[in-house]
Amino acid sequence: MTDHNISTTPVTLLGLGAMGTAMARTWLAAGYPLTVWNRTAARAEPLAAEGAKVAATAAEAVAASRLVVVCLLDDASVGEALADADLAGKDVVNLTSGSPAQARARAEWARERGARFLDGGIMAIPPMIGVPDSGGYVFYSGSGELFQEHGTALTVPTGATYVGENPGHAALLDVALLSAMYGMFAGVEHAFALVRKEEGIAPKEFAPLLVGWLTAMSGAVHGIAEQLESGDYTTGVASNLAMIVAGNPTLLATAEEQGVSTELLAPYLTLMERLLAEGHGDEGTAGVVDLLTR
Amino acid sequence: MTDHNISTTPVTLLGLGAMGTAMARTWLAAGYPLTVWNRTAARAEPLAAEGAKVAATAAEAVAASRLVVVCLLDDASVGEALADADLAGKDVVNLTSGSPAQARARAEWARERGARFLDGGIMAIPPMIGVPDSGGYVFYSGSGELFQEHGTALTVPTGATYVGENPGHAALLDVALLSAMYGMFAGVEHAFALVRKEEGIAPKEFAPLLVGWLTAMSGAVHGIAEQLESGDYTTGVASNLAMIVAGNPTLLATAEEQGVSTELLAPYLTLMERLLAEGHGDEGTAGVVDLLTR
Ligand SMILES: NC(=O)c1ccc[n+]([C@@H]2O[C@H](COP(=O)([O-])OP(=O)(O)OC[C@H]3O[C@@H](n4cnc5c(N)ncnc54)[C@H](OP(=O)(O)O)[C@@H]3O)[C@@H](O)[C@H]2O)c1
Ligand SMILES: NC(=O)c1ccc[n+]([C@@H]2O[C@H](COP(=O)([O-])OP(=O)(O)OC[C@H]3O[C@@H](n4cnc5c(N)ncnc54)[C@H](OP(=O)(O)O)[C@@H]3O)[C@@H](O)[C@H]2O)c1
Repeated sequence: MTDHNISTTPVTLLGLGAMGTAMARTWLAAGYPLTVWNRTAARAEPLAAEGAKVAATAAEAVAASRLVVVCLLDDASVGEALADADLAGKDVVNLTSGSPAQARARAEWARERGARFLDGGIMAIPPMIGVPDSGGYVFYSGSGELFQEHGTALTVPTGATYVGENPGHAALLDVALLSAMYGMFAGVEHAFALVRKEEGIAPKEFAPLLVGWLTAMSGAVHGIAEQLESGDYTTGVASNLAMIVAGNPTLLATAEEQGVSTELLAPYLTLMERLLAEGHGDEGTAGVVDLLTR
Repeated sequence: MTDHNISTTPVTLLGLGAMGTAMARTWLAAGYPLTVWNRTAARAEPLAAEGAKVAATAAEAVAASRLVVVCLLDDASVGEALADADLAGKDVVNLTSGSPAQARARAEWARERGARFLDGGIMAIPPMIGVPDSGGYVFYSGSGELFQEHGTALTVPTGATYVGENPGHAALLDVALLSAMYGMFAGVEHAFALVRKEEGIAPKEFAPLLVGWLTAMSGAVHGIAEQLESGDYTTGVASNLAMIVAGNPTLLATAEEQGVSTELLAPYLTLMERLLAEGHGDEGTAGVVDLLTR
């Protein structure tokens, strides 16, 4: 059901990959005039049938709307696609994944071309786009004015969290959360490997134990934050490094017994041992953060 | 308020460290006749004042009750402490942390001495002991008869989850959950390191984003379990390895930009790259479990 409301902001979207296509549909469904462009033109055809205007070139797509959303593969493809476009007076929202430095450079590049700029880090996957309460959202950073002015359009595909004027911060938070998630997955997959060949422990029985435990233990994150801010890593420590490190041999022996490589587990145990050796036995694990940034 | 009910089972507890002491208090508070022993006798004094009988030797403590709970430092200390005790007809519950192989050997050792045996893995820290709804619990495995008979006494300190007759399984699940938790902490601390020196991102503002994200993403654990059981690692994959690995350079570049060591992050990215190179680009990350156990 498309409700063409002429009071809604026109949107231009560059990039109709899995993510761009999912986003495009939400603007069309919400009645936003939408102009799309994709390098491989065929990917625009289904959207044309759903009401999108299809531009022949990126420059033509950019000319169609003040608000220009870019969702391409990587930062290099953004530079390529927009090389010939006139960005003067445009509001460019770059949802293409990249590093904080790439986002800051891209912000400067946009400023030089007379555009306002907002960088975004998408904390969602395509099936979450357009689904209310999916839990997905986009980190935005850069021009607060742009975010103010286009916040309504930007929250059509999924939630929006503005994290300040520094254009690198959306990418930084995006990467930080992904990195944390891969740590969790590494731990989870090591745990599954430990029980993998064990008669009588099925993965689907084990999974709820794992999820319950990790959910409960994620509360420790607040304690780590508290300690990093206060600089006192001994406060509110439930298990100190002396106790934790005393258990390391059991963790390593169990991996050995079960025939599981310790390559994902050992690096963290090693850092905790290093902290203990440096005299931090009465502290929690927050000192690992300092070891990593030393 | 101690309610001495003579219908409750007498309990003997060996080991009055932080954990043993916390447990002892819950049995005293619930009116269980309690006999305690600790290598360093002074640690028993406060409990004597609270109503515990104090045995002079471990053998004497064992003689006092059929149910003998052991909570010592490590498996070697269990062997030492019980070397001279007569275990015939006893129900030994070993809450001392150890590897699955140690638990199985200890079960055999107890059987040879005429005792029934249950091994426990404590998923709690001392402040959670005796606190209803703390979320803490103990994995128990080994003699199901013993667990049936003494389940009431065993659930006094904290929750109890019986996981089968294999005496190694409580220790295995304990170690698996701890290992998963350290993976999560490694990821979390890498993430804190990324934002550590960044003006305008305070740890306490970042923490709730991290907890929300990890909690939401922990749901993927069920999908991994499903895939491990079916053997089809492509089903229900939200982000496949081809897409994930395409993002690895951004994660590594961001660590570099922020001056953060990749020692905790890189091993997992490397395993995903190896899977991709082996032709698993359309799968999720469950194949990492197989790489670890190869
Ligand atoms: N999918 C997700 O789950 C997800 C989640 C969070 C963030 N993201 C981010 O969102 C962005 C888009 O992701 P996606 O899933 O839509 O990717 P995708 O399906 O691989 O699509 C990539 C898009 O980039 C275009 N492209 C690639 N190189 C180009 C170039 N040199 N010039 C112009 N266009 C070029 C492709 O055009 P062609 O059709 O011509 O190849 C296509 O439109 C990426 O930065 C990704 O990291 C994705
Ligand atoms: N505390 C926790 O958060 C926690 C959580 C889960 C599991 N656990 C496990 O629970 C067990 C006990 O932990 P805890 O925190 O109570 O440890 P703890 O405070 O360090 O106490 C260790 C206990 O073991 C005794 N001990 C050590 N070596 C001995 C030996 N050779 N012979 C006889 N007794 C010996 C100590 O006696 P002395 O007083 O004479 O030194 C003390 O009673 C450990 O296996 C631990 O891994 C603890």
